[in-house]
Amino acid sequence: VASSSQPAEMRWWGWGESGHRPALSSHTLAYLRASLGLAGRPRPPVALQQVRLAPSRLSEPVADRLRALLGPTGVAIDHRERVLHAAGKGYPDLVRMRAGEPEGAPDAIIYPREHEQLRRVLEVCAAASIAVVPFGGGTSVVGGVAPLAGGHAAVVSLDTRELREVLELDRQSATVAVGAGIRAPALEAYLGSRRLTLGHFPQSYEYVSLGGCAATRSAGQASSGYGAIAEMVLGLRLAAPADEIDLPALPATAAGPGLRQTIVGSEGILGVISELRLRVREAPAERRYEGVFFENLAAGVQALRTLTREHAVPDVARLSDERETQVSLMLAGAGTLKGELARAYLGARGYRGGCLAILGFEGGREEVAARRRRARALVRGCGARSVGRAPGQAWLKGRFEAPYLRDDLLEHGVMVETLETAVQWSGLLGAHQRITDAIAAAMAAQGTPGIVMCHVSHLYESGASLYFTLIARQLEDDPVAQWRVVKQAAGDAILASGATITHHHAVGRDHRPWMEREVGAGGIRALKALKSELDPSGIMNPGKLLPES
Amino acid sequence: VASSSQPAEMRWWGWGESGHRPALSSHTLAYLRASLGLAGRPRPPVALQQVRLAPSRLSEPVADRLRALLGPTGVAIDHRERVLHAAGKGYPDLVRMRAGEPEGAPDAIIYPREHEQLRRVLEVCAAASIAVVPFGGGTSVVGGVAPLAGGHAAVVSLDTRELREVLELDRQSATVAVGAGIRAPALEAYLGSRRLTLGHFPQSYEYVSLGGCAATRSAGQASSGYGAIAEMVLGLRLAAPADEIDLPALPATAAGPGLRQTIVGSEGILGVISELRLRVREAPAERRYEGVFFENLAAGVQALRTLTREHAVPDVARLSDERETQVSLMLAGAGTLKGELARAYLGARGYRGGCLAILGFEGGREEVAARRRRARALVRGCGARSVGRAPGQAWLKGRFEAPYLRDDLLEHGVMVETLETAVQWSGLLGAHQRITDAIAAAMAAQGTPGIVMCHVSHLYESGASLYFTLIARQLEDDPVAQWRVVKQAAGDAILASGATITHHHAVGRDHRPWMEREVGAGGIRALKALKSELDPSGIMNPGKLLPES
Repeated sequence: VASSSQPAEMRWWGWGESGHRPALSSHTLAYLRASLGLAGRPRPPVALQQVRLAPSRLSEPVADRLRALLGPTGVAIDHRERVLHAAGKGYPDLVRMRAGEPEGAPDAIIYPREHEQLRRVLEVCAAASIAVVPFGGGTSVVGGVAPLAGGHAAVVSLDTRELREVLELDRQSATVAVGAGIRAPALEAYLGSRRLTLGHFPQSYEYVSLGGCAATRSAGQASSGYGAIAEMVLGLRLAAPADEIDLPALPATAAGPGLRQTIVGSEGILGVISELRLRVREAPAERRYEGVFFENLAAGVQALRTLTREHAVPDVARLSDERETQVSLMLAGAGTLKGELARAYLGARGYRGGCLAILGFEGGREEVAARRRRARALVRGCGARSVGRAPGQAWLKGRFEAPYLRDDLLEHGVMVETLETAVQWSGLLGAHQRITDAIAAAMAAQGTPGIVMCHVSHLYESGASLYFTLIARQLEDDPVAQWRVVKQAAGDAILASGATITHHHAVGRDHRPWMEREVGAGGIRALKALKSELDPSGIMNPGKLLPES
Repeated sequence: VASSSQPAEMRWWGWGESGHRPALSSHTLAYLRASLGLAGRPRPPVALQQVRLAPSRLSEPVADRLRALLGPTGVAIDHRERVLHAAGKGYPDLVRMRAGEPEGAPDAIIYPREHEQLRRVLEVCAAASIAVVPFGGGTSVVGGVAPLAGGHAAVVSLDTRELREVLELDRQSATVAVGAGIRAPALEAYLGSRRLTLGHFPQSYEYVSLGGCAATRSAGQASSGYGAIAEMVLGLRLAAPADEIDLPALPATAAGPGLRQTIVGSEGILGVISELRLRVREAPAERRYEGVFFENLAAGVQALRTLTREHAVPDVARLSDERETQVSLMLAGAGTLKGELARAYLGARGYRGGCLAILGFEGGREEVAARRRRARALVRGCGARSVGRAPGQAWLKGRFEAPYLRDDLLEHGVMVETLETAVQWSGLLGAHQRITDAIAAAMAAQGTPGIVMCHVSHLYESGASLYFTLIARQLEDDPVAQWRVVKQAAGDAILASGATITHHHAVGRDHRPWMEREVGAGGIRALKALKSELDPSGIMNPGKLLPES
């Protein structure tokens, strides 16, 4: 039907493309210097050619077999491509990449162009004991694309960027079939010109592939209204080393276990998702985003819970805790609309603390007006005070900015990490406190007391997500070890709170230690059985998702 | 927390309890006699003691081991219990049971009282090569509880009725944990007294167990609003012969493949669901059900599709095709409100054909009023004409009556079957025609031309369910063979239409022939791998869901 354009390539040491303006203001930097005790000098990344890679272990006969299948441009072994596929975009990934010392790099990168070719490539790799790491946008923040060979002779990164066609649009059923490598902006552009939208806007939106979203059970910022990717995937095609699974788009079925949902979230360990059949919606005529203030987090949580109970959920709902509210208002900076308005508001009404929430409504004009009216009445009943559209518009404008800010923070020696979970309403405030305390304690215990902020978002009838951001001064000696201590404390606190180890970042390499506590030994056993059947030689994304045997 | 009362037992040869008033009016019978060419004499079922069963094959040592675990009342081998567990409630089941000739019967019935006991029972059965058929309400219409031994030494029916406690109510999170054997009315009674509801009302509601609903991926009549069971199950516990899987209630998680959804729909082939953690909702203050008329099916489908597109879906939406509308108005009978009003309406407006739809809204008073206003405006734009509340109220009143009617039809020598599918909007009208034609032709080809009726229900953004009812004169010689010809034609037409073999009846024994076409060889392979791991000796519900090897 349509071919999307060649996707943009991110800078290898960070987020986004070269030339992106700095996201960190001097004002913010001064604040961080003072509060975190930063050293003065910026630490830029090394040059591309300085990145140290071991020589490729891909043998010539295997390379020849792959080239025979994929053509000469379908296999890359050069330094630049290997560096570009050496890591995802998690904090430890970026720390290592900036230092020019990745944990490893793929021995080659392969670019299959269609499903059958992909299947044959997997057969070749299985026969030659070559590990395969599916690579979409490369935006994983949990080590999901780390080039781990898992005991195999070599590891290749299977980049899905050539699988990016729009295959079929079914307007009546409001579904679209796409190659899984299509990037989110390309799909939105295709749909937008037809007044449709997928409605999937994760923070990685600018670079993420839809196949990656499906494989990692992604949820976008508007998931309260549009649903998470799991609800959008009505059918899909999986190429596995031993077989394939091809499930058509269906509105629903009772024909056995939910195989679609078994493949969604499989993180490349069963095979490569080559095609997706996705639900789409009418593009909204109106987008109305606004801010409301609550006295404290408990009042805000009560309001969000009420919205779910009354079936009056906005498309976007995110409630910052007091610390996130305070920091984001401060960092909004003198001269910005959001900062000034919020400050004026806070001054006028005499707020000392409080929590800012963003509520966003999308849809037809009348629909938005009606839903907004109802939601506002409900949150007002829980003590919300409106702060108008400015904070909502500011949030919309900056919604994809955080990863750029992270690059600037890394440059100035700041440890910065985000992590997320989901939990039932009855456990939410307790989990928030416990996880916040655990992270703060783990940072302080290393002599780097920091800031822990959180927001509640992604509303469900039974609970919501908690999304934490933490910053502290980076320890120069071993920043990854420093990070690991914090991550361990956070993960343990999450599981101890009855929450899930991940709401939308997936498991990857970094959350493996908690996976057995998450689904139990029986759950792991079931997943391993599935993997053994579809990937008997264990070449698919080793070292991810499943705990070590 | 609370124990629900001992569940009611259905009459072994049909639906419901003894003493239920006849559902078939003399007026309807006369119509059927004429149009289907029925023979005159009613054919009652044989007496209970006349039902022919082979002697139980359960060996004394195994029976003793089971009694040691379950106590003397935990194992039954008497004629009555064996007959009561000999079949589900599908048409071929009832034909055989009424004749006193079931295909088989379980060699014993066992009644575990809690999860750990259940696990030990499965271990005993695995060691002794005893097949285990999980049995909740016994309402399967696809042979899901057929007592097939699958080559094992014997087969037991594992009745979950003692696993019927309400284990925990979490009001804040709006979730309830229950033993999987709890019946739907018992759970609704418990919830209703707390102004809550599950909102799951399949036609089998009066007798169905929630564990059975989860295992068969059931959808209730109000699934357009409340969702299907798959959306209600937030966590569950599975006891399998080789292990267990215990997943807590979570609003959402990205920790790997959707294991909850892999167990939902597993139809007892992986193990027995012992516990469910379910989402609940506020009980509706208002229930408003009403009828609207469309010129034809296409106009009605267009209206339903518009409701989904505009996010204005009623909780119940069902649109009868012309034949179903005609027959149901006729059968509503002289003197009934629905019949009279509809007839008056048809007369007044001069309708010759047309399609009746029921739209039902539930919720708070204002919410219902607002949603109804919006939906009415949208369907009016697609040509709908209101026929007021009477048809809606009549439908609500009779919503669980069809299985009683079926018993009366069987008594008078009528073949009656229902079957269902789901399909994308773009294929819906084509599928309706193709499946209708295939069923009609298969009935006519056997010398028993009949009536095929259908309604569209269970709305989704990308499509909807089609629910067919067929009746014809029963062939006396081999009514099951007659049924099988029709079923084969219907199933083939469904798959040829790009639709699913089942939207909410599940696969069981009867839909196995289409399962490989439904999920492909790779999908079957994945499911078999899961089964082999959790049930290595293959004792769990043999002969169901998976195609024969």
